[in-house]
Amino acid sequence: MAPGHDKPELALHQVDAALRAAILVEALPYIQAFAGRTVVIKLGGSAMGQAELARSFATDVVLLRAVGLKPVVVHGGGPQIDEMLGRLGLGTEFRDGLRVTDAETLDVARMVLGGRIGRDIVSAINRHAPVAVGLSGEDAGLLAAAQRDPGLGYVGDVVGVDRTILDTLIEQRFVPVISTIGADGDGQAYNINADSAAIAVAEALGAEKLIYLTDVPGVLTAVDDPASLVSRLSVARARLLIAEGVIAGGMIPKVEAALAAVEGGVGSSHILDGRIPHVLLLELLTDEGVGTMVTRSAGGPS
Amino acid sequence: MAPGHDKPELALHQVDAALRAAILVEALPYIQAFAGRTVVIKLGGSAMGQAELARSFATDVVLLRAVGLKPVVVHGGGPQIDEMLGRLGLGTEFRDGLRVTDAETLDVARMVLGGRIGRDIVSAINRHAPVAVGLSGEDAGLLAAAQRDPGLGYVGDVVGVDRTILDTLIEQRFVPVISTIGADGDGQAYNINADSAAIAVAEALGAEKLIYLTDVPGVLTAVDDPASLVSRLSVARARLLIAEGVIAGGMIPKVEAALAAVEGGVGSSHILDGRIPHVLLLELLTDEGVGTMVTRSAGGPS
Amino acid sequence: MAPGHDKPELALHQVDAALRAAILVEALPYIQAFAGRTVVIKLGGSAMGQAELARSFATDVVLLRAVGLKPVVVHGGGPQIDEMLGRLGLGTEFRDGLRVTDAETLDVARMVLGGRIGRDIVSAINRHAPVAVGLSGEDAGLLAAAQRDPGLGYVGDVVGVDRTILDTLIEQRFVPVISTIGADGDGQAYNINADSAAIAVAEALGAEKLIYLTDVPGVLTAVDDPASLVSRLSVARARLLIAEGVIAGGMIPKVEAALAAVEGGVGSSHILDGRIPHVLLLELLTDEGVGTMVTRSAGGPS
Amino acid sequence: MAPGHDKPELALHQVDAALRAAILVEALPYIQAFAGRTVVIKLGGSAMGQAELARSFATDVVLLRAVGLKPVVVHGGGPQIDEMLGRLGLGTEFRDGLRVTDAETLDVARMVLGGRIGRDIVSAINRHAPVAVGLSGEDAGLLAAAQRDPGLGYVGDVVGVDRTILDTLIEQRFVPVISTIGADGDGQAYNINADSAAIAVAEALGAEKLIYLTDVPGVLTAVDDPASLVSRLSVARARLLIAEGVIAGGMIPKVEAALAAVEGGVGSSHILDGRIPHVLLLELLTDEGVGTMVTRSAGGPS
Amino acid sequence: MAPGHDKPELALHQVDAALRAAILVEALPYIQAFAGRTVVIKLGGSAMGQAELARSFATDVVLLRAVGLKPVVVHGGGPQIDEMLGRLGLGTEFRDGLRVTDAETLDVARMVLGGRIGRDIVSAINRHAPVAVGLSGEDAGLLAAAQRDPGLGYVGDVVGVDRTILDTLIEQRFVPVISTIGADGDGQAYNINADSAAIAVAEALGAEKLIYLTDVPGVLTAVDDPASLVSRLSVARARLLIAEGVIAGGMIPKVEAALAAVEGGVGSSHILDGRIPHVLLLELLTDEGVGTMVTRSAGGPS
Amino acid sequence: MAPGHDKPELALHQVDAALRAAILVEALPYIQAFAGRTVVIKLGGSAMGQAELARSFATDVVLLRAVGLKPVVVHGGGPQIDEMLGRLGLGTEFRDGLRVTDAETLDVARMVLGGRIGRDIVSAINRHAPVAVGLSGEDAGLLAAAQRDPGLGYVGDVVGVDRTILDTLIEQRFVPVISTIGADGDGQAYNINADSAAIAVAEALGAEKLIYLTDVPGVLTAVDDPASLVSRLSVARARLLIAEGVIAGGMIPKVEAALAAVEGGVGSSHILDGRIPHVLLLELLTDEGVGTMVTRSAGGPS
Repeated sequence: MAPGHDKPELALHQVDAALRAAILVEALPYIQAFAGRTVVIKLGGSAMGQAELARSFATDVVLLRAVGLKPVVVHGGGPQIDEMLGRLGLGTEFRDGLRVTDAETLDVARMVLGGRIGRDIVSAINRHAPVAVGLSGEDAGLLAAAQRDPGLGYVGDVVGVDRTILDTLIEQRFVPVISTIGADGDGQAYNINADSAAIAVAEALGAEKLIYLTDVPGVLTAVDDPASLVSRLSVARARLLIAEGVIAGGMIPKVEAALAAVEGGVGSSHILDGRIPHVLLLELLTDEGVGTMVTRSAGGPS
Repeated sequence: MAPGHDKPELALHQVDAALRAAILVEALPYIQAFAGRTVVIKLGGSAMGQAELARSFATDVVLLRAVGLKPVVVHGGGPQIDEMLGRLGLGTEFRDGLRVTDAETLDVARMVLGGRIGRDIVSAINRHAPVAVGLSGEDAGLLAAAQRDPGLGYVGDVVGVDRTILDTLIEQRFVPVISTIGADGDGQAYNINADSAAIAVAEALGAEKLIYLTDVPGVLTAVDDPASLVSRLSVARARLLIAEGVIAGGMIPKVEAALAAVEGGVGSSHILDGRIPHVLLLELLTDEGVGTMVTRSAGGPS
Repeated sequence: MAPGHDKPELALHQVDAALRAAILVEALPYIQAFAGRTVVIKLGGSAMGQAELARSFATDVVLLRAVGLKPVVVHGGGPQIDEMLGRLGLGTEFRDGLRVTDAETLDVARMVLGGRIGRDIVSAINRHAPVAVGLSGEDAGLLAAAQRDPGLGYVGDVVGVDRTILDTLIEQRFVPVISTIGADGDGQAYNINADSAAIAVAEALGAEKLIYLTDVPGVLTAVDDPASLVSRLSVARARLLIAEGVIAGGMIPKVEAALAAVEGGVGSSHILDGRIPHVLLLELLTDEGVGTMVTRSAGGPS
Repeated sequence: MAPGHDKPELALHQVDAALRAAILVEALPYIQAFAGRTVVIKLGGSAMGQAELARSFATDVVLLRAVGLKPVVVHGGGPQIDEMLGRLGLGTEFRDGLRVTDAETLDVARMVLGGRIGRDIVSAINRHAPVAVGLSGEDAGLLAAAQRDPGLGYVGDVVGVDRTILDTLIEQRFVPVISTIGADGDGQAYNINADSAAIAVAEALGAEKLIYLTDVPGVLTAVDDPASLVSRLSVARARLLIAEGVIAGGMIPKVEAALAAVEGGVGSSHILDGRIPHVLLLELLTDEGVGTMVTRSAGGPS
Repeated sequence: MAPGHDKPELALHQVDAALRAAILVEALPYIQAFAGRTVVIKLGGSAMGQAELARSFATDVVLLRAVGLKPVVVHGGGPQIDEMLGRLGLGTEFRDGLRVTDAETLDVARMVLGGRIGRDIVSAINRHAPVAVGLSGEDAGLLAAAQRDPGLGYVGDVVGVDRTILDTLIEQRFVPVISTIGADGDGQAYNINADSAAIAVAEALGAEKLIYLTDVPGVLTAVDDPASLVSRLSVARARLLIAEGVIAGGMIPKVEAALAAVEGGVGSSHILDGRIPHVLLLELLTDEGVGTMVTRSAGGPS
Repeated sequence: MAPGHDKPELALHQVDAALRAAILVEALPYIQAFAGRTVVIKLGGSAMGQAELARSFATDVVLLRAVGLKPVVVHGGGPQIDEMLGRLGLGTEFRDGLRVTDAETLDVARMVLGGRIGRDIVSAINRHAPVAVGLSGEDAGLLAAAQRDPGLGYVGDVVGVDRTILDTLIEQRFVPVISTIGADGDGQAYNINADSAAIAVAEALGAEKLIYLTDVPGVLTAVDDPASLVSRLSVARARLLIAEGVIAGGMIPKVEAALAAVEGGVGSSHILDGRIPHVLLLELLTDEGVGTMVTRSAGGPS
């Protein structure tokens, strides 16, 4: 619509149209680059607390799928499990900082992860389009697990991924939402750390990206200064920063997980702030720098 | 192996071989008739209580699938939901004999159905082969639900079935195990009666059979006499028996469900005694009469 | 990235991110609605004059394809044909306002359309990705033509569309770019009016939309007042406006073409201002109203 | 059906049901292990004499196919050829123990194998379901043959297998029944030893099993004592038993054929007593030991 | 190759080249018209007697297949069956002009048809390329038969055609060669009249053409005058000529068969002289008129 | 049709039939050998001048396709470009014997090649069947080009072939007709030598044959003597003849192109006289020797 000279609001409107177009056009090279690629998104427990963020997350997943990516969601749910254990009056014993998971605790974890958290994510996505399907690692042999330590009870490690069910769903353009319970050959279930499960899934799928939605802005060189965010980190530099103590504390396991994925063949891993609305879109479809991307080498994929 | 004349135990053994062969051969016409057909199996809550029966059920499902049928499992879980509500100190209000389902009750039902009972069935099946996949009606828009009555809270009726996810899984020879939670267009979940959900699924799939695993021997004309079992029942005769009061009490809703399925296009529906080990095999693959089969007309499919 | 309280530029940056996300999210329902749908875009001669607009058009086509639409481009080229006829010293005779097309004129039209204009459009699109393929209506029997009037020479009407070649290309996600030369059974070529050809193609493909990129803002009820733009027009109202003389002059054939397409089964037709950069994106992927959409009834598809 | 306490025959019936189920369940791991695998069954001439055994064989083949195996039948027919030669008054010359096959003898062999024996097997199978298709090695270049020795006339060896026609039929779940006539490049037919042809076919198909239906119980270490049956034999031990003279006489060529198949890549070969009804089912789908299985190593596939 | 002026033989050669090209070009419209179409060819017993004609026939079939047609061969073999019955000292009883077929006669017919004649045709074709596959009507339920008259023994009529095996073979570009033995549901074989079987097959396949290779030139209006050959015959005119006695004697059943096929949905049927070398090519791929073509109406397919 | 003794014209007719059949049969081994193979045909500018030859060429291409080959046409058009440059009053500058191609010259070349010559070829083929599709090297990234020498302007060399569009068309049995304009990554077009483009296309497709239709009889050892035609030439002998000066002058680039193709993996290349009607058929489908075939070694493919 050609604006008249005396119609500032239309002129503004015209600017708006141009801006709208510009932002859509900005997304084009990303859409082209990532079309058909698999992106595994690990959703932490705290990222799931707020209704607003859950909606924003669901929208992003649907939009990424709509423009041709293949999103796979992996989620944990520690806080929610704790809360339910509390309501049921079940105590928790810790050994060397790790929770001992007896049969009853496992049962609660399984119920909460697959019967509530996974369901909530599926439900939020499916408000847009009926595409999300909740899975447990027990489904179709998805996550083969082995006990880590008898003293810890039913805490397991992933010893194998059967990607058949994921391929079946992804092929039909469904979005798998995975609760991280695994099983051994006898059908015994185990609780699996969600970060590890996400890595195993991303590696098995040859994913382009593994994205951690966390509650930190990314890797900061000065812990209280958001401006110190490191946008991009090679494996070598990450190891150096850990050695130098720049990456420290709770950030270490996050970075280690990101490194493990990249070293296992995933194109890049991203530590994003799950508290920013639509952080997935911003990271994947705009020029905007958000969070920290870890790549094998300094010149890795963007 | 040709038996020697002085080897009675070998001779016996020979008899055994012939018997074995005879039973396998007896299954052949059933396997041929049902190959590629979909069979929906509704598993009642009480049928899931015993470990032995759960194992027998899982074996049957895997065997039916192995010989070419396409089993789909639908389960409820009333007793287990009650138990969990009790442990959480949540009371239950009844209105006109129906339980009022508030948000918290729904949340518990959803957790128990999808996070425990469905999981247990999947796990029992997957000990044989990694083929079972747990689904909720919320997955991929499987069960579209609408509220039955505001006064009952989140109790829903199935208003639509999107069979896409079932087709996707069945096509790849997976066995769907469905928890009967549905959702409306806004993503609001509802608890669905499992019998109704099983009918809706069987109709949507054009199933050959809908099988109810119950805790009764089938339809008896004399309630305490197992010998009065009616092996086969046309719709017309069933209606007559209900009108005459021969079918009465708790048997009525079971028979009504069986009738609804058959009238909705399912080939036949079966009321079986889930307490008999391997009752599915006996009903589907042997000449042995077990339970009651309901067909549209007296000369319907066997 | 969480902004600090004393970092206005970061705060602004944050706003920017939110705006970016909002515009991408705004596109989601359109992408979902149009995914897999065919959109035929008729590009008028004047819309092809400016390099900047050509680039913007090409980008839009590539982006529409990237998000799942199936664009098909149909173009004319009157001005460029005139210019080449002039350079070759070939005069033009008009009869009843229509140009008589002798063999030499036809030859020039064919050369200019298929050898220059079509090529330029293909080339502009293929700078983004190698997806455009130039076609003439003579290729693979695409446009079957018949002579309109012997007195007019080689001016033809479309009497049949063989969509095989379009299906072949679209199936492989190519973007056909069609020059509107047709041929009869003897291989005699005819020049075809591009608007008519676009309608024929859109109808044959069962297109969702037929979009005319013109050099007017759309249908105006007051010819000099852009604010009088009619955003949406049913067939009935369009006929009324023509009868009342509100739609008049050069706008009549444009609206008639739009009506013909809709009456022929195309979901909707759009008269857009090809001079607005990225007008296709604005019309198809944003809430922004641009140009005039013609639908069968007042409540037609949006 | 729950039996009443005073209904012994029902109680017996109940036992029966459990036994039925047990035998079906016993088959499950075998069905799972062999699903989709090719099993080549060599039917000797004498195994085809009795109507009862022919029916039992046909039933077994149809059942194996119904539970997912891919049976391929290869048959000879020496006795029947002899009988027809006799009826036609054609003598037989032997050279070094091998029958000289002139053109007329070849013609009779070809007629009897492909026009009678193969037909009878096909017919017996197709009474259950229309799945068997008779083939000659001349069809579609299946068995390329070369003359063994000019002095023997039209006796040939397999020099090539074109599995295209087998793949075509097996893919559509047909059961090929092969008469062992081969042809050279000039279309000259040759009579082929059925054991050799079976090995060639099994190797070309990468068969899981090659089963010889013979008229002996299997390999016996004491020739008159059925209890001396060797259930399982590695290649190494078979060679040892031959060297030691334990395997001797007419058993040697049978064992050599079994060894050749296994060494040529077939998973295992079995020497079974074709006189036992349903011996194929007993061997393949039950825990019952029947006949001798030869595997590459002592711990080979079961 | 441009011929020199003093090279008459080269000049002649040049003429030759033009002629060659002209004949190949003449075939083009026929190849285009018949590409992908099924042609059923009924080969009479006498047409199979001469080696030269057998080779010519085989070449034609392979060439028709090579240019895109789908040939299916159906053959009888009366004379050869008679000869074998004679050699075996088996008499033949006739009742109302039809041979009584007892079990032994049937057995001989089956052997001779499927084990010799069919094999010879397959072998002749496969010298060019491994494409022919011999079938009996007993294979895969191809020809379902019923006894015509108990007094005639095992003489059957086709009561059903299961085209699955034909489709399977044709899809993979094999050429089925069918011996006309059918079977009933109990597996009892019957000898089927080859003309009737050919009609049944052609109708079931929706064949474009059914071609009878006979030992007459076609339909002659003057029985001893080859020049009286009727090239083309509508159903109506054929009926008229029969009524008028112009078509008489042994020609009547041939024409009746041709009429039956056309009335059953086959595009056209042809009565050709199987004694002319390459008569199939001449009829199907050249402008040359050979034999008689019967079509539904006077203006039927050519 | 059996001829009467007193009907010489019928006898002649009979001879004719035999000859017709013989020529069709002669084509069989060639059709079998080349079925499914790709043949790239380079059409020189002078071969396109005569209407009669254009028709003959089109017929040949359609016939080759009809019998199973996959023809791909590549054409140049120097003379026609010259003529149009002349009509537009555009001069041509030569540098080292090569024409400098400025933007205007390129524009004319592109128009004439893609908008006239390619169109004419497509049109001639499509009179037989709607199978030809005109392509430019700019379509779908078909011919990636790079500037040869800045001083020559827009003269390019092929640096890459994206065969996707060719595979797409050939898979659907279309015949691509390629104008040899290429483009670089920025969308800049270049004029490409048609011989080089044909080689690049043939190599990329792994073509069986690359055929040059020229205006000479083939390679002659005595330039004025057609009888000195070399029918078959190995790479080694060709190099020798060039070294010895037997192949000289304008024949050298033709032979070099033929050698380049063969050395690049094409099965054989052929230099044919495009002035002989139906020369493609004569070369590919008859025993007639026409032109010169170049193969890697003396015993290469025929």
